[in-house]
Amino acid sequence: MPSNRGVVYEGPGKVEVLNIDYPKFEDPQGKKIEHAVIIKTATTNICGSDQHMVRGRTTAPAGLILGHEITGEVVEKGSDVLFINVGDLVSVPFNIACGRCRPCRERNTGVCLNVNNKQPGGAYGYVEMGGWAGGQANYVMVPFADFNLLKFPDKQKALEKILDLSMLSDIFPTGFHGARCAAVDVGSTVYIAGAGPVGLAAAASSRLLGAAVVIVGDRNEERLAHARDVGFETINILKHDNLSEQIEQIVGDPWVDAAIDAVGFEASAPGQAGARGEAAPASVLNQLMDITFVAGGVGIPGLYVTEDPGAPNEDAKRGMLKIRFGKGWSKSLHFHTGQAPVLQYNRQLMQAILHDRVQIAKVVNAALISLDEAPMGYQQFDRGAAKKFVLDPNGMARKKAA
Amino acid sequence: MPSNRGVVYEGPGKVEVLNIDYPKFEDPQGKKIEHAVIIKTATTNICGSDQHMVRGRTTAPAGLILGHEITGEVVEKGSDVLFINVGDLVSVPFNIACGRCRPCRERNTGVCLNVNNKQPGGAYGYVEMGGWAGGQANYVMVPFADFNLLKFPDKQKALEKILDLSMLSDIFPTGFHGARCAAVDVGSTVYIAGAGPVGLAAAASSRLLGAAVVIVGDRNEERLAHARDVGFETINILKHDNLSEQIEQIVGDPWVDAAIDAVGFEASAPGQAGARGEAAPASVLNQLMDITFVAGGVGIPGLYVTEDPGAPNEDAKRGMLKIRFGKGWSKSLHFHTGQAPVLQYNRQLMQAILHDRVQIAKVVNAALISLDEAPMGYQQFDRGAAKKFVLDPNGMARKKAA
Amino acid sequence: MPSNRGVVYEGPGKVEVLNIDYPKFEDPQGKKIEHAVIIKTATTNICGSDQHMVRGRTTAPAGLILGHEITGEVVEKGSDVLFINVGDLVSVPFNIACGRCRPCRERNTGVCLNVNNKQPGGAYGYVEMGGWAGGQANYVMVPFADFNLLKFPDKQKALEKILDLSMLSDIFPTGFHGARCAAVDVGSTVYIAGAGPVGLAAAASSRLLGAAVVIVGDRNEERLAHARDVGFETINILKHDNLSEQIEQIVGDPWVDAAIDAVGFEASAPGQAGARGEAAPASVLNQLMDITFVAGGVGIPGLYVTEDPGAPNEDAKRGMLKIRFGKGWSKSLHFHTGQAPVLQYNRQLMQAILHDRVQIAKVVNAALISLDEAPMGYQQFDRGAAKKFVLDPNGMARKKAA
Amino acid sequence: MPSNRGVVYEGPGKVEVLNIDYPKFEDPQGKKIEHAVIIKTATTNICGSDQHMVRGRTTAPAGLILGHEITGEVVEKGSDVLFINVGDLVSVPFNIACGRCRPCRERNTGVCLNVNNKQPGGAYGYVEMGGWAGGQANYVMVPFADFNLLKFPDKQKALEKILDLSMLSDIFPTGFHGARCAAVDVGSTVYIAGAGPVGLAAAASSRLLGAAVVIVGDRNEERLAHARDVGFETINILKHDNLSEQIEQIVGDPWVDAAIDAVGFEASAPGQAGARGEAAPASVLNQLMDITFVAGGVGIPGLYVTEDPGAPNEDAKRGMLKIRFGKGWSKSLHFHTGQAPVLQYNRQLMQAILHDRVQIAKVVNAALISLDEAPMGYQQFDRGAAKKFVLDPNGMARKKAA
Repeated sequence: MPSNRGVVYEGPGKVEVLNIDYPKFEDPQGKKIEHAVIIKTATTNICGSDQHMVRGRTTAPAGLILGHEITGEVVEKGSDVLFINVGDLVSVPFNIACGRCRPCRERNTGVCLNVNNKQPGGAYGYVEMGGWAGGQANYVMVPFADFNLLKFPDKQKALEKILDLSMLSDIFPTGFHGARCAAVDVGSTVYIAGAGPVGLAAAASSRLLGAAVVIVGDRNEERLAHARDVGFETINILKHDNLSEQIEQIVGDPWVDAAIDAVGFEASAPGQAGARGEAAPASVLNQLMDITFVAGGVGIPGLYVTEDPGAPNEDAKRGMLKIRFGKGWSKSLHFHTGQAPVLQYNRQLMQAILHDRVQIAKVVNAALISLDEAPMGYQQFDRGAAKKFVLDPNGMARKKAA
Repeated sequence: MPSNRGVVYEGPGKVEVLNIDYPKFEDPQGKKIEHAVIIKTATTNICGSDQHMVRGRTTAPAGLILGHEITGEVVEKGSDVLFINVGDLVSVPFNIACGRCRPCRERNTGVCLNVNNKQPGGAYGYVEMGGWAGGQANYVMVPFADFNLLKFPDKQKALEKILDLSMLSDIFPTGFHGARCAAVDVGSTVYIAGAGPVGLAAAASSRLLGAAVVIVGDRNEERLAHARDVGFETINILKHDNLSEQIEQIVGDPWVDAAIDAVGFEASAPGQAGARGEAAPASVLNQLMDITFVAGGVGIPGLYVTEDPGAPNEDAKRGMLKIRFGKGWSKSLHFHTGQAPVLQYNRQLMQAILHDRVQIAKVVNAALISLDEAPMGYQQFDRGAAKKFVLDPNGMARKKAA
Repeated sequence: MPSNRGVVYEGPGKVEVLNIDYPKFEDPQGKKIEHAVIIKTATTNICGSDQHMVRGRTTAPAGLILGHEITGEVVEKGSDVLFINVGDLVSVPFNIACGRCRPCRERNTGVCLNVNNKQPGGAYGYVEMGGWAGGQANYVMVPFADFNLLKFPDKQKALEKILDLSMLSDIFPTGFHGARCAAVDVGSTVYIAGAGPVGLAAAASSRLLGAAVVIVGDRNEERLAHARDVGFETINILKHDNLSEQIEQIVGDPWVDAAIDAVGFEASAPGQAGARGEAAPASVLNQLMDITFVAGGVGIPGLYVTEDPGAPNEDAKRGMLKIRFGKGWSKSLHFHTGQAPVLQYNRQLMQAILHDRVQIAKVVNAALISLDEAPMGYQQFDRGAAKKFVLDPNGMARKKAA
Repeated sequence: MPSNRGVVYEGPGKVEVLNIDYPKFEDPQGKKIEHAVIIKTATTNICGSDQHMVRGRTTAPAGLILGHEITGEVVEKGSDVLFINVGDLVSVPFNIACGRCRPCRERNTGVCLNVNNKQPGGAYGYVEMGGWAGGQANYVMVPFADFNLLKFPDKQKALEKILDLSMLSDIFPTGFHGARCAAVDVGSTVYIAGAGPVGLAAAASSRLLGAAVVIVGDRNEERLAHARDVGFETINILKHDNLSEQIEQIVGDPWVDAAIDAVGFEASAPGQAGARGEAAPASVLNQLMDITFVAGGVGIPGLYVTEDPGAPNEDAKRGMLKIRFGKGWSKSLHFHTGQAPVLQYNRQLMQAILHDRVQIAKVVNAALISLDEAPMGYQQFDRGAAKKFVLDPNGMARKKAA
């Protein structure tokens, strides 16, 4: 049995790379399962939502193995894995889904009923998401493998584009889900709040969907500069106090057809200085209602939590937001929330990558680092680095890039 | 020129029937128009949203002629009205729409850009909705008549069902829009907050869409008794403090597939006594997030306002609501707001009425009264009468019923 | 191991009830499988599509065990069946689907890629559909059970409605698929070609979807009389030569909003006498193009085959039909073909049955017979009996009805 | 009153530029209308569907003024034109639509009920389409102007892109409609039959919708060479007899996700030499059924006629096609026919042009010629020139290009 090392959350602000157990064919309750595979990770990314845990904004226990963005090679499989084979190179959706319950049958794999005892929806290496070990490691177990895994049709070609394909496990479908829910279409004008990796993935998705104008807003000038470099319009929300006016200068109208919230509950008050201004969890939602065209859509892939123990006031601790709802109502807006159901989108996005329709790794500024560099990656990302860190635990991606 | 009398808002709590001008072929700015007709009203209903004005919760000026639910006969027409003729019996959608702007072309007639100088969307006899005279009168002018009007194919048959057809101008499409937006479908379980006319219309719509179970919740026992009489399940939200449990007793699961908010911003805190408990404008929205199945829809035809000068606190005055948004996000819910675009639905609902698929007048407990009884109707409705008052200004409906 | 008897196709016009093997946990290629269950049949229906085989219009081999409409109780399960348990009463969709391939993930379970070596899509007891044993027997094996099976929430209540629930395995979803594809909606006028069980199920589905007028056309007066008995409008296509005129008399317009072909390739020329007139395989399609409103939909659940060795001419033998396609094009019609993907609809239709929104057994005139009476059932159905025969191999349904 | 000259159909094979009447504010029945404008044409294109008339394949009468692809400046307007003004530069959808009937309200402007006495749907300068004068002229009248016209927001910028914007009146939306109906989506593989302007517009549309691979098939090598020049994959259907194999070489699978028929009823038998091989009107449809993935869509913007007097046999004369329908049924395909409803798409496609997301003029190889050169343009286009001819009757476009 090969040795295994992984990125472990040890407490607020602290992650370490430690020896961990090699995965077993068992569910988190210790029951033997036939439907799983063991994956040798090719790449596994650091995600903004991991930061919520690492910053101590959640109830994540010390000892949690992190990582839900996983791409890799199948090295072992259970007896009821029929269509995936040892040797296949695959993308693992971050949502764990059984493929057999009502939400899964209806394609809502983000809220599967059978993979988490506490609430609908499961994920690898994440607090309250079912207790499945994370994938920032050499090896990880993937349940319901036939249903969950997306196999790349040509292994060699896939390895050549591994940094792009690595985004299929989470942020590319997450950004795409935001764009789709916002009803981005050919010719749309789009505003995206947040120039982090999800915001950039939403921007790339909007462009892929044919949007005429894609604007990204943020307060982090380094991220905005990168967004411009990869072809998007930008707005620095610190430098102006009227978003509609800034949009009008770019688009010609003081509104956009579709808006995407790629920030979530850790939003800060607009127009305030600092890497993060004063906490203002509803500020992005309220802004998007102002600038979205009548009858338009607001896609909300940014995370909003039911409990936020680290929040500055009682309302926010209970996940209670002050939303100017009448504004949205008067404009007949619609709002779409929740985790992206990755399986709804990853096949078609893979095709777009393989046929050179999108350079998603470049758009999100993917940076390949070793497993041991993971703690450094967490730190830099937390400070707002305009990068998406991709770990390479087994040297498979590095070898390719060389 | 015939004489004209109408229902006039004279100040908080005060409506009177007064002599008013006979309509002209002019828009509210006084410009001559070719696209209008004059309607002799057959029926015109009192609406819950009129009550917001009459209660003094808005900035409606004294002198406003009320009424946006209009059915009647065309008696005159402009030179560019080509497909509607004098003598036609028609339903008038409460939303005034030009039929020529982008939202209208995209079927979003509730947010037309050309009929109101202040904001998108217009209506008859309503504050901030463009200054068009209301239709609780003998005669009313309807602009863009070819586009807006729904002609009944057989005048005599229509007069026989005039109380049902009268609901096509607003509440039936409004309830239907709520159900459609909530994604009610064959076999759905549905919870509707509010047993007033819009709630009952949403219930009838849900049944028409094939819902398996339709539950209406309210605190007004008279309205709930009527809802049971016309075949719906009911929940008295005063008598229990856990809505999920009550739903589980009816449905077998502690959730519904779809939820509809037919209450809006004048909601009261659940579990509190009184015709109206303590104002709690977000309470319905927060409850619906609790009880809606994962990935489900919430339709929100109930009105939420951008400004509420009569509200009990500063947040509510600015239309700011405390919403437990993380709850909805964790369940991947979607939310649809705004006025119903009546023209999207009224033709098909007319067909359902004419072919006896629905008895909407009975469901909402339509009560025919004379124009002079309008002030009494406003009073009784404000007190929570389980009725939908239909005015009969020209005796056309009464004659029929006799 | 219990003994097993089943309905066996022995050659054109000949079916017998014979002793057959008790099912094994093996796929048709003899490979051991972990994902299957053994079902003790409660009910199993005779289907019109079985008749194509029994009439000798296909290449079905002698010895084939018939039956793809199955409802029953789970008596054994494989090691990777996790959410279905022994003792559960379940509906079995006629389409066999793996739940793991691209079409299955996209809900197109009628064209699964993994259950049939010859072409996409599998079924029980059907020629060219993968070699899976049929279910007109005491016991039958169901693969990919967690994915395929629909469990009834309350076994006792379900047994009381077993004749209705029995229709969930095929014809109710098939009729519903036709209606959905034809875009039947609230207030629609609908014409359905064919008053057999699928046509009646399409009619019941249309009504459930809120259709204002539902018309069923056929040449079999007994079937039409039954259709009228259960509340539909009817047209005897033998008695008139202009379908539009007949529709106009019922609807008021010479068209319908939506049309459904519940006949398929064994259609006869309209206006010709005899239980079946001269073969005219495109006649239904051509008629539906005439009578469907502009931009309308045509749902085609009726079977069209790629090869028809028994057809009267060379074109028809190759599945080549003479279609007046320009007619459809000039009206901007859309056409939807293929097997119903039962899993897309059966849960919601089950809810409609369990909550008394539809009496599907009554609509299709279900008639319960014993396994030994199956040959008689085949004969009567072939002669056009206005009945849907339901076999009761283990006396479970009969006991209930008693 | 300015003088007016236009392109007139004089009989099979013969078009001439003649003096014609200056347009009046009258409908084809001679009735005065308030809703029209007079347009001074900036550009007006020759369309493949004009060729059907010019070749004598229709009942078009001599004297017909041709031209339904019109872009220009408003020079006069009727009293009920409120939102379009003199001086506006506009695109005119080729479908004439009243904006007031049921199909128009439902966005199906290709089958308007009020603009043609003979059948649903009207167009400028086209046989059986309502008798409206064509726009290959200096001036043309456009009815229901507020509803029909798309105004360019910035006149100067629009003139700079006039060759691209000129494609908004017909072929760009027509190609886009084909792609949309075929359900082309991000990551799709697409096959388009026909490398003429509509096929190329469908290809550009597919790319704009995010398709991963776009393949165009034709027998005209000049057109295929141009298609390759603008970035599409191509297949010469004369050089191979198995389309699936050729697709597999490009895509890796022997199918595509979506297929578009941009040829229509004048198709020739595949694999046959000559600019046009033997007439085989169903050959494209039959091919597309072979190569489309299960549950996929087939978009059919290519014209199919109800009567084809010039066809080689009786069936084809009545618009009767031999279609291998069972093939499509076994794969659960869906088919969408008819004229594109231009107004559904032209605004968003305009945005894509104005913001440099697509170079449609380059893709279709637009060639600007004078009004007097129109007869030459018709001739060259009929011979299969890989060009889209754009007439410039008033020198407005030429001036710009200079």
